[in-house]
Amino acid sequence: MARNMKSSTCTAPVNIAVIKYWGKRDEELILPTNSSLSVTLGQDQLRAKTTVAIDPSFTEDRMWLNGKEQSMKSARLRNVLREIRNKVRKRKADDETLSWKVHICSENNFPTAAGLASSAAGYACLVFTLSKLFHVDGDISSIARQGSGSACRSVYGGFVKWVMGTQKDGADSIAVQVAPASHWPELRTLILVVSDQKKHTSSTEGMQTTVNTSQLFPRRLLGMEEKMEQMEKSINEKDFHSFAELTMKDSNQLHSVCLDTYPPISYMKDVSHQIVRMVHCLNSICERNIVAYTFDAGPNACLYLLEKDVPRVLSLVTTFFPPKDNNMEKFIQGLPVDVLPPSQGDLAAIPMEKQTDAIRYIIHTQVGADPQVLDNSETLLDSQGMPKYSIE
Amino acid sequence: MARNMKSSTCTAPVNIAVIKYWGKRDEELILPTNSSLSVTLGQDQLRAKTTVAIDPSFTEDRMWLNGKEQSMKSARLRNVLREIRNKVRKRKADDETLSWKVHICSENNFPTAAGLASSAAGYACLVFTLSKLFHVDGDISSIARQGSGSACRSVYGGFVKWVMGTQKDGADSIAVQVAPASHWPELRTLILVVSDQKKHTSSTEGMQTTVNTSQLFPRRLLGMEEKMEQMEKSINEKDFHSFAELTMKDSNQLHSVCLDTYPPISYMKDVSHQIVRMVHCLNSICERNIVAYTFDAGPNACLYLLEKDVPRVLSLVTTFFPPKDNNMEKFIQGLPVDVLPPSQGDLAAIPMEKQTDAIRYIIHTQVGADPQVLDNSETLLDSQGMPKYSIE
Repeated sequence: MARNMKSSTCTAPVNIAVIKYWGKRDEELILPTNSSLSVTLGQDQLRAKTTVAIDPSFTEDRMWLNGKEQSMKSARLRNVLREIRNKVRKRKADDETLSWKVHICSENNFPTAAGLASSAAGYACLVFTLSKLFHVDGDISSIARQGSGSACRSVYGGFVKWVMGTQKDGADSIAVQVAPASHWPELRTLILVVSDQKKHTSSTEGMQTTVNTSQLFPRRLLGMEEKMEQMEKSINEKDFHSFAELTMKDSNQLHSVCLDTYPPISYMKDVSHQIVRMVHCLNSICERNIVAYTFDAGPNACLYLLEKDVPRVLSLVTTFFPPKDNNMEKFIQGLPVDVLPPSQGDLAAIPMEKQTDAIRYIIHTQVGADPQVLDNSETLLDSQGMPKYSIE
Repeated sequence: MARNMKSSTCTAPVNIAVIKYWGKRDEELILPTNSSLSVTLGQDQLRAKTTVAIDPSFTEDRMWLNGKEQSMKSARLRNVLREIRNKVRKRKADDETLSWKVHICSENNFPTAAGLASSAAGYACLVFTLSKLFHVDGDISSIARQGSGSACRSVYGGFVKWVMGTQKDGADSIAVQVAPASHWPELRTLILVVSDQKKHTSSTEGMQTTVNTSQLFPRRLLGMEEKMEQMEKSINEKDFHSFAELTMKDSNQLHSVCLDTYPPISYMKDVSHQIVRMVHCLNSICERNIVAYTFDAGPNACLYLLEKDVPRVLSLVTTFFPPKDNNMEKFIQGLPVDVLPPSQGDLAAIPMEKQTDAIRYIIHTQVGADPQVLDNSETLLDSQGMPKYSIE
């Protein structure tokens, strides 16, 4: 019986980097070779939700992810729990909860198969929830970082940078909010989920192979701090043209050093490159950047653009990459939007062939807020500390 | 009437670089930003053939390429003619042939649509033929270079380097034979001609955009002389493992800096990347490199391998990338070879799906010889100096 059970339930957002994290200088502590910067996305569309419970009657630490029990042997998971418990111990060395086992239940509101970086939201949510349950104050981003590097950026909303830091123990390798979501409310994101989601090199493995083998990689690192400054400036000034150029260039360079890795790593697919081409054609017609692409360790495109340009861009995306069944409501998920036929001018200036079913669906979202604490009624664990739903 | 007509007919080979030329430091003189090294291929499979005729009765310089008359306004064509005439003038300032117009007829023995670098063979052949016709001695590679950079390497057989040089006028930017074809007679080449041959960024345009916009490109240049030395050493020692690694890494790096270009350039297709994966899987089973890929400014793969490994590699290529009609004789052109089914071991170790019709055909060839002078009976021009066949 779980009589003294305490639990906390929270959500945390996905973030998509515009200056990418690629490479660790310390694999154990997850310390990066460069600073990075991301946009936190809206939790209505994309979020992890986690309940953590503690109770003296629990016999072991357990975890369920999307309805499936996970091994607790993961070093990263153990590191995160150890770091949280260390913080509790520092506050009160004989805190009785230190010996209590945890039950963790987590789920995402988006399909894992989408190839979206779910580990960032997942670890941010776990660490945030643990911090609420154990009343841990102060920076938690350095704990989230030890679960999954980019998770540290998901502990804040808005525009977030992960400062690489210089200390050996990683104490200064933390996330800092550059601007809240309210700073640039017109910014929108379209995630184009590509149909071909074959397994690819994990980013953990890929980035270290790059660090170890790419001749060009050190040159990339030399330019990162300047890029970070330019990106912060473009965000502070809401200079979309510059924001877009920096975003696209940094994405291209990440995939460039992946290709310079030995053996080479290639995350982008033909359809990804076609999206790139469409974006550059459209920006070229507009004589300034109205949309930017960025690609993580997979073929999905994440487009950044302003609210006013969403209908125009979506009309082109749906024209060149239409769904098989032409069901636009299912195809475009998230924030509501009217999709009109593209203008003849846009069509004429973009010499591309239509490719049906190359994009599986689109998620339309915006800059989002910090992780949230939910009411106890939202708990994912029952009164015995077991998952309420959908256990495999 | 062309009564005093003199003509010469020659062939010149295609070359495929293993250390790539990408970037000019002087666009007018076609002086490269780095040295490069290539393998000259067999002319039985791949060659340009050119007849040049001169006659006092010709009223203008004219040229026919693959049966179609070309404009003589091309700066590169005019540069080549000017350089040859300058050499003649130096020998004899009042040579009567200097005022005679030329008729040029050229054709390739491989389809232009194959996306093979036909301009290298074409310009090498034109310059070689002109040099024979006008009895020009000494280095002609620096003249071929002014037609098309990589053409300078096609004026020699075997293994050829293009030394970038340092002089402003380009006098020392010439091709030098590293070793003749007979040095490594076991070396074979398989050109996998990919089905999707959509128009892509020309290398002339692409390389200058890279020079102007890629942040990583200068780092590539820093490493080139060392790579050249290593490549020469691996060829001199016939060290295939090292030759293959250097070849693959340099190809990857070329496509890497293309992706770091703004807007990015992407020549490789999904099928190209699948060929890369297959090669690395196979080399991994063998615990040493038995095959190397290299990609120029297009999606076609050029594989280098030793004669003894051709059946094994072809069995895998034809298994994973079979032709639509299963007609192997049409599919594998060039040197004869027996294709057997792949071993169960190879199949099990290469987790790839079969893709029908992704490769259009394969050209099987070997290291080839210098340009050749043909007998007059092989002329492409009739006694009036007009093309004999297939005028459009």
